[in-house]
Amino acid sequence: MNNQKDTIGISKRVANISISAIKKMPILAEKISGCVSLGQGIPSFPTPRFIRNGVIKALQKEDFIGKYSLQPGIPQLKKEIAKLLIREKNIPAIDPEKEIFVSCGAMEALACAISCLIEKGDEAILFSPTYTSYIEQVIFCEGKPVFVPFLETKEWKLDINSLKKAITKKTKVIIFSNPVNPTGYVFPEEELREIAKIAKENNLYIVADETYDFLTYDSNPIFSLLSIPDMRDKVIGVFSFSKMFCMTGWRVGYMIASPKIISQVLKVHDAFTICAPTISQYAALVGLLQTNGKTGKGDKCIQKLKLALLKRRDLMCKRLDSLSDFFEYIKPAGAYYIFPKMKNSKMDSKTLALELLEKAKVITIPGVAFGPQGEGHLRMSFGGSEEIINEAFDRIGRYYEK
Amino acid sequence: MNNQKDTIGISKRVANISISAIKKMPILAEKISGCVSLGQGIPSFPTPRFIRNGVIKALQKEDFIGKYSLQPGIPQLKKEIAKLLIREKNIPAIDPEKEIFVSCGAMEALACAISCLIEKGDEAILFSPTYTSYIEQVIFCEGKPVFVPFLETKEWKLDINSLKKAITKKTKVIIFSNPVNPTGYVFPEEELREIAKIAKENNLYIVADETYDFLTYDSNPIFSLLSIPDMRDKVIGVFSFSKMFCMTGWRVGYMIASPKIISQVLKVHDAFTICAPTISQYAALVGLLQTNGKTGKGDKCIQKLKLALLKRRDLMCKRLDSLSDFFEYIKPAGAYYIFPKMKNSKMDSKTLALELLEKAKVITIPGVAFGPQGEGHLRMSFGGSEEIINEAFDRIGRYYEK
Repeated sequence: MNNQKDTIGISKRVANISISAIKKMPILAEKISGCVSLGQGIPSFPTPRFIRNGVIKALQKEDFIGKYSLQPGIPQLKKEIAKLLIREKNIPAIDPEKEIFVSCGAMEALACAISCLIEKGDEAILFSPTYTSYIEQVIFCEGKPVFVPFLETKEWKLDINSLKKAITKKTKVIIFSNPVNPTGYVFPEEELREIAKIAKENNLYIVADETYDFLTYDSNPIFSLLSIPDMRDKVIGVFSFSKMFCMTGWRVGYMIASPKIISQVLKVHDAFTICAPTISQYAALVGLLQTNGKTGKGDKCIQKLKLALLKRRDLMCKRLDSLSDFFEYIKPAGAYYIFPKMKNSKMDSKTLALELLEKAKVITIPGVAFGPQGEGHLRMSFGGSEEIINEAFDRIGRYYEK
Repeated sequence: MNNQKDTIGISKRVANISISAIKKMPILAEKISGCVSLGQGIPSFPTPRFIRNGVIKALQKEDFIGKYSLQPGIPQLKKEIAKLLIREKNIPAIDPEKEIFVSCGAMEALACAISCLIEKGDEAILFSPTYTSYIEQVIFCEGKPVFVPFLETKEWKLDINSLKKAITKKTKVIIFSNPVNPTGYVFPEEELREIAKIAKENNLYIVADETYDFLTYDSNPIFSLLSIPDMRDKVIGVFSFSKMFCMTGWRVGYMIASPKIISQVLKVHDAFTICAPTISQYAALVGLLQTNGKTGKGDKCIQKLKLALLKRRDLMCKRLDSLSDFFEYIKPAGAYYIFPKMKNSKMDSKTLALELLEKAKVITIPGVAFGPQGEGHLRMSFGGSEEIINEAFDRIGRYYEK
């Protein structure tokens, strides 16, 4: 990735990182007309009508909507977040004032957390395939990403022995998402407890990215490490409204952590963005009030979203089944990505992704971007409509017929 | 500032920075009821009605409003920004695709620029009194802020000789705002050209923060260093919609720089926030279309804002005149801050600001936060309404009567 050599006095921390392939592919595709996308994780659903209507009312009547909020977030929003976590995740007694910070999307919360923890030379353990941005965020902080493999032969279960072996004196933190982007793997509770035990024994922090928390298809709700009382000082939970309320573009997420960590990350937040956009925080508040409250409007939206995505997942699996000469895959249990393995191909993942972009006009993300275990795969999102999925696979099918 | 010592394994870059006093004072004030604020720079004006109406229409009809934009910004917004800069600042021929990036407020653009330029041990020259966040951003990047004084005895003119002497082999960049926050000083063109010449001779970058560009009261529009063709590779211009369209809470600003710099800063942007909030970018676009276009609605709003702030400046000066035993000041030519010097006081600026908060219930910002030349001053914002300014000075007056 570190191919952008510095000739104009750019700092090493920035010269050594890249724009994630997840964002590069759509930018390349802008130059080719008529592409369909299985690329970036933008679900086809618009932000729910009741949230937009709530924001419209505020735009008509309330002047606060255009002004800075308090820097850690709108107090009422933080209170509703605490309620949600009790209700949904069995996470007890969060102090909204000291243990929550509202961020410009989960991405900012992740970047703030990693900036706080990683010093030059420190090691961060990432489970590979991993979400691409963790790699860049660790390198930005002049740390070293250390990859521990998920085992594709065991349905993407983590290689716990490799985790134990990967820990050194320099290891500072373990970073992962659950459900996993890009494989859709959902960690069972006992596996998470084992990871927590290892972290505890070695005095490591855990950054638990639960951006896709609501999107599990076959299992119960995910288990959150924040629900283990004696891990609370060591777990930094990162959450998003982007997927839950189809609000990717509003840029609003949040972090749950110990007061000591929150007081530190707020300094980074202050220096990078001041506060999350007030209008977006308000939109999230409208959503949460209808989720925590009696109307259940928020829950209904989430249920509708899950059902639609479940159908799309099954459709994408069916379409991949008919390309079984070229791809094999493990059915995802969460999120909205499949990470199929390329079969009978002499290409690497980047070459194939560029081929599919240019010859089939379909955007996919090359697996190599997701760490060493990613090469030889493509990430495909089933966030798009059934029409888009069908059109994309029709095109991919025609490409392989040639 | 580096008083928060690390006991929980926090990186030095974060342990060594602070939340700006500009944000700390309102958080302290939250615990005291009935405060009036001359603190954070939030103008009392709401976001203009025509912008809010434009956003309402989009929320009713357009689904894109809730989704990620392309990572560098909405293409049409970037085109309108290029038009604005030609029209207002005589900045020629900006390529909207390669020389503009739309950020989560000017703050993100500043943090991205400084992350790109400052390596451990590098020096950044700040003109003191300086905007507080530059200090934190430089320390975050493990660089060293080097302060060059503005001369209060010469109406806050820069000490150019000190600038020349401050440059070492480690100097990488000069960072300043124009109009200056916190003094309201507006650089004359010849002074800027001299700074540019010094930067050029020493191969330094300039980060020119023009957040308050439209707010000048006594002089012509500010001169932008981006208008000097042979400085274009070395000047990074940072701009905001926050003040121009009263959009502080929307978090949308932008950077103008060479394609080489933009391609680097976009990597930081990708790792911190992905994209500026789409709804906020759209709001800025609505504003700009009515500014660049024929209706002149945008211009009318800006003119109205300037007139109101001019009246507020003169009111605040008058109120300060009647406290001439305790304060003396230089009338600001731009922005919406006055930086009066404390007279006949045995307190330092922090003690006085806390006294005024606790005993007079007025929020001001202690001058010490703005660098070594800041001690012995308070920053007072005249962004608030005339009622607020009068109420605040009535209270300060009563405090001094005791």
